[in-house]
Amino acid sequence: MTLQLGVIGTGAIGRDHIHRITNKLSGAKIVAVTDVNSEQAHAVVKAENINAKVYKTGHDVINASDVDAILVTSWGPSHEEFVLASIAAGKPVFCEKPLATTAAACKRIVDAEIAHGKQLVQVGFMRRYDQGYRALKKVIDNGQIGEALMVHCAHRNPSVDSTYTGDMALTDSFVHEIDVLRWLLNDDYISAQVILPRRTRLADKNLQDPHFVLLETKQGIRIDAEIFVTCKYGYDIQCQVVGETGTANLPEPLSVLMRSEAKLSTEILTDWKKRFLSSYDSELQEWIDSTIKGEMHGPSAWDGYFASVTADACVAAKHSGNIIPITMPERPAFYARK
Amino acid sequence: MTLQLGVIGTGAIGRDHIHRITNKLSGAKIVAVTDVNSEQAHAVVKAENINAKVYKTGHDVINASDVDAILVTSWGPSHEEFVLASIAAGKPVFCEKPLATTAAACKRIVDAEIAHGKQLVQVGFMRRYDQGYRALKKVIDNGQIGEALMVHCAHRNPSVDSTYTGDMALTDSFVHEIDVLRWLLNDDYISAQVILPRRTRLADKNLQDPHFVLLETKQGIRIDAEIFVTCKYGYDIQCQVVGETGTANLPEPLSVLMRSEAKLSTEILTDWKKRFLSSYDSELQEWIDSTIKGEMHGPSAWDGYFASVTADACVAAKHSGNIIPITMPERPAFYARK
Amino acid sequence: MTLQLGVIGTGAIGRDHIHRITNKLSGAKIVAVTDVNSEQAHAVVKAENINAKVYKTGHDVINASDVDAILVTSWGPSHEEFVLASIAAGKPVFCEKPLATTAAACKRIVDAEIAHGKQLVQVGFMRRYDQGYRALKKVIDNGQIGEALMVHCAHRNPSVDSTYTGDMALTDSFVHEIDVLRWLLNDDYISAQVILPRRTRLADKNLQDPHFVLLETKQGIRIDAEIFVTCKYGYDIQCQVVGETGTANLPEPLSVLMRSEAKLSTEILTDWKKRFLSSYDSELQEWIDSTIKGEMHGPSAWDGYFASVTADACVAAKHSGNIIPITMPERPAFYARK
Amino acid sequence: MTLQLGVIGTGAIGRDHIHRITNKLSGAKIVAVTDVNSEQAHAVVKAENINAKVYKTGHDVINASDVDAILVTSWGPSHEEFVLASIAAGKPVFCEKPLATTAAACKRIVDAEIAHGKQLVQVGFMRRYDQGYRALKKVIDNGQIGEALMVHCAHRNPSVDSTYTGDMALTDSFVHEIDVLRWLLNDDYISAQVILPRRTRLADKNLQDPHFVLLETKQGIRIDAEIFVTCKYGYDIQCQVVGETGTANLPEPLSVLMRSEAKLSTEILTDWKKRFLSSYDSELQEWIDSTIKGEMHGPSAWDGYFASVTADACVAAKHSGNIIPITMPERPAFYARK
Repeated sequence: MTLQLGVIGTGAIGRDHIHRITNKLSGAKIVAVTDVNSEQAHAVVKAENINAKVYKTGHDVINASDVDAILVTSWGPSHEEFVLASIAAGKPVFCEKPLATTAAACKRIVDAEIAHGKQLVQVGFMRRYDQGYRALKKVIDNGQIGEALMVHCAHRNPSVDSTYTGDMALTDSFVHEIDVLRWLLNDDYISAQVILPRRTRLADKNLQDPHFVLLETKQGIRIDAEIFVTCKYGYDIQCQVVGETGTANLPEPLSVLMRSEAKLSTEILTDWKKRFLSSYDSELQEWIDSTIKGEMHGPSAWDGYFASVTADACVAAKHSGNIIPITMPERPAFYARK
Repeated sequence: MTLQLGVIGTGAIGRDHIHRITNKLSGAKIVAVTDVNSEQAHAVVKAENINAKVYKTGHDVINASDVDAILVTSWGPSHEEFVLASIAAGKPVFCEKPLATTAAACKRIVDAEIAHGKQLVQVGFMRRYDQGYRALKKVIDNGQIGEALMVHCAHRNPSVDSTYTGDMALTDSFVHEIDVLRWLLNDDYISAQVILPRRTRLADKNLQDPHFVLLETKQGIRIDAEIFVTCKYGYDIQCQVVGETGTANLPEPLSVLMRSEAKLSTEILTDWKKRFLSSYDSELQEWIDSTIKGEMHGPSAWDGYFASVTADACVAAKHSGNIIPITMPERPAFYARK
Repeated sequence: MTLQLGVIGTGAIGRDHIHRITNKLSGAKIVAVTDVNSEQAHAVVKAENINAKVYKTGHDVINASDVDAILVTSWGPSHEEFVLASIAAGKPVFCEKPLATTAAACKRIVDAEIAHGKQLVQVGFMRRYDQGYRALKKVIDNGQIGEALMVHCAHRNPSVDSTYTGDMALTDSFVHEIDVLRWLLNDDYISAQVILPRRTRLADKNLQDPHFVLLETKQGIRIDAEIFVTCKYGYDIQCQVVGETGTANLPEPLSVLMRSEAKLSTEILTDWKKRFLSSYDSELQEWIDSTIKGEMHGPSAWDGYFASVTADACVAAKHSGNIIPITMPERPAFYARK
Repeated sequence: MTLQLGVIGTGAIGRDHIHRITNKLSGAKIVAVTDVNSEQAHAVVKAENINAKVYKTGHDVINASDVDAILVTSWGPSHEEFVLASIAAGKPVFCEKPLATTAAACKRIVDAEIAHGKQLVQVGFMRRYDQGYRALKKVIDNGQIGEALMVHCAHRNPSVDSTYTGDMALTDSFVHEIDVLRWLLNDDYISAQVILPRRTRLADKNLQDPHFVLLETKQGIRIDAEIFVTCKYGYDIQCQVVGETGTANLPEPLSVLMRSEAKLSTEILTDWKKRFLSSYDSELQEWIDSTIKGEMHGPSAWDGYFASVTADACVAAKHSGNIIPITMPERPAFYARK
């Protein structure tokens, strides 16, 4: 069978997904699209040379009879509405992060999905599909370093544009670590602390940069993470897990080892889009495959909710200077870890 | 459009290709298969859950009216026959290496294809599709190390089974370097020398191991390559290009960096099948894409022919102890480098 | 001229120093020794084949007319007494760490030295003499990574013996980072926080292991350091400085890169004594050279005092769970940074 | 006891040795010097602040009654004369490489030393004292990679000056590999072949660069070595030994790992003098120590002779294009490997 997809939002990420599903992946095709800018939706359909109908609204896409499942790639504030509508229609929905823009909204989605009685929602945390993180998880799960005790992370961008402000380091950048580390450790967070190190002179005057975040898990694992979005030298994601008998590092991306100009070097990417490129492919291929089987294995609505609550705690920790407890309801059996 | 494929040979590699085309790649489907063991062909169709007709012979597959293009994955001695028949039928054909088992047979294919007037044949040298080799080629083509002067290679297997005998180190293992280095350097070979180093005591008594091969290119680039198929420690492919201003190494496969048991280490693969796994995906996806467009970009019949002549020269060099010239007709314009 | 040295304490480290000064270094000789175990002092003189007089007490050594300078390598609680006596005698003194066992005692030494009017005391913080730390400092001082913003450290031992108890992770192990990072950053500390991560099951039941320490400097640089003394895999000292334009890591010790048993690896030391072996040579050679010139360039009494106050703050932070301010008097001009 | 040394030749290397013996090493002092430029000899004595008598000739230094041993650091063509005179005087002599400028002259030294009846001559092949080569040798000697089968080397200089001509790549640069690999492998050479790869456009027009040398040992080990003296990027010495169960690489020099300007890099030295700096210290300290004991452990006159014969064979191989046998008399028991 071929899974027939409707896409809500044909901006950058939406168009990327349309392209990869059409040209690189197996088992699905785009039959319906929409965008707040209808003209742009039409242009994408033409440029990608797909046979898809352009609808007026996301709700039209969701309710189209030939649409089996939905991709929500519209802007964040509209996610809640379309995810809830997909659940109401009983159709599987893949929603780009964030699941919703507030923890309360995430909670409403969780509640709706539980009420529906079957998992339908997957959130676009693509790092779980990265070959490197998966290799790292395998090392941990195999017990190759004993039980995990600490995790040291860095999330560095060469620079950010002027729309990157306020607490986005926590809510937009660090949120990827928030999700992937819970998955990596099979654990949940119980507190957050945020330290503000000496500021770089190379960031915008109004931007605190870097941040240093400390998370504590239920099992007592301590995570420290530097988020440094004006680091100049490259887009660099580091993760070292320290276990009882050894440490394991997230692999560096594959690169040619050069000897040139008095340096022995490998390249560091500068464009974040290239860093997790193949993760997007795996993420969507696996989502297509499991959706066809009527299953759901990826980051759930619960994971999206947990990420939102944790990011909120980090923001509160930053502004108060205090250690902030992270309080979540008990994980419902509905979302049991597999 | 969906490319409809016929597969001749449903052994290990044939079945692998059927699986990836069906489940991971886009744009093609298997509609016809055959195998000398008809029962096995039926079993694969069932196991892979594909809707393909099982034919009695390769010629039936080639001539089936719904078959747009052919995959030849039967045993080597049958390649010439099926590739020639595909050309005769005017259908694109992807043939696993070797193109044919003798240089003369390869030449017959080249002649037939030229006579046909349009390139139809691609040979399964998958290393050209490896992300690492491609990154290396980009460094060279960009002039990042100046003109290439030397290439140092190693091709190491942990061990080989009892069917691996005689000159297979040259004709079966090193043949991959033969093809990929011509492509990497945009150059051709003019001579070969083979040195027999001290033998490992860990190989079968009747097996010379390792070999050390020297190739000279038209531009004077010197290639040295160690082929060591009982190296015990892993499957390890090394390639360093030395240019006028620097050197560039084939990237190591992605691996978790560990600190454990008094070692800072990454893993070396031991199973060769895992080393170029994703290259097979890219190789076939690109072949499907270009075939749909009526184009042919991969390793050509000419490349298969050149590999065969070079391997023969290496074997002659090994047995004579001499430097053996590699003589080929002029490259026909038909096979001009793009 | 040859500097004539008296050694107080001929235990492990004392004897090591006697051996290196006699056989590897230039410009000094041992003329006087003492130990609480007089027999052992005689044995060392004999075994090392040196022409040195064995005295009854440290004071006798200090006051011997042919002794130009003193090495204090006795046990910690006796350091204050012998350092003060050396100052009283106006003789240069190299004292192994700790300078004294309490901050108050360190302060008494600082006061005595200032009263004497000339720097005479050097403390045995040998990491400042490590080739790796020196290369790292050069990178920072040259501005190659801009201003330092954060430092990520790890101090790992494979295991500790039963005498290693209580807060020794902070006072005995981490004290090396305390000194070397002040020197590396040309900065001082203003607060300490200590986090207790999930404990390893492989340490003694009564030992908290690991610790995670956070230090803040005057300039706002944030240091995080893992101290993990039962890490099993090796003796491993890590230090990454994050600056405005890049990061710089303490070099790994020189090691043969191996490909063996499915691993690409270098060795990690397991014996801490080997890690800074050549640093001891440089430390003493430079101390001899500068002492002969009547100068003093190494870690000063002030540095010993600062280390003591900082270690005390870490201990207080650990037991309270609070962020503890580190309060020191203004740095006297007498100890101005050079 | 203090070894009293006479130095013949106070040029660059002579002065360096005077400096290190005086200021860094233990157990020796310079009491006599000479140079063809007498003024320069006086200047060095003054600048290095040593209490040494300046003699008119090398023979005067050798025969001075207070001179226990000799350092020959004069220009190559004078080495034979002073080494022979030292043997005649029965005094230990350390001679910078080359031992003599022809194989015949080396043979005369060997004969004279055997006639004298006791080893007195050490040749200045400092790589045997390099920490990296020693670590590599330990790995091989410990059997960590089984028996050695092949060695892959590179000897690269960023550039050479206009005095570097003709076959100096073989006689001046590669001669270091010639000596150190015999020692590393505990083996001798039996043939040489030299291949001339495509030339770099960045070398002087009259200079062949690079060279590619193949050596065969008695045990059948095959060595390949690239000598590339205009490689532009740095001074880089590579050596990989391939054994039956693994490979081992000469360690890279210690360097700070940097993340900067889109590169993860370590520094490659550009100044060859810095590469083996500490090897010179070890070489001379160990020579002093063993000379005081009346022993001789370093590279012998026989080793100097073997290096000369091998270099000659390489030159003949280069100019003839042939594989040239390396013929030496049987190793005399006098020079038995220890």
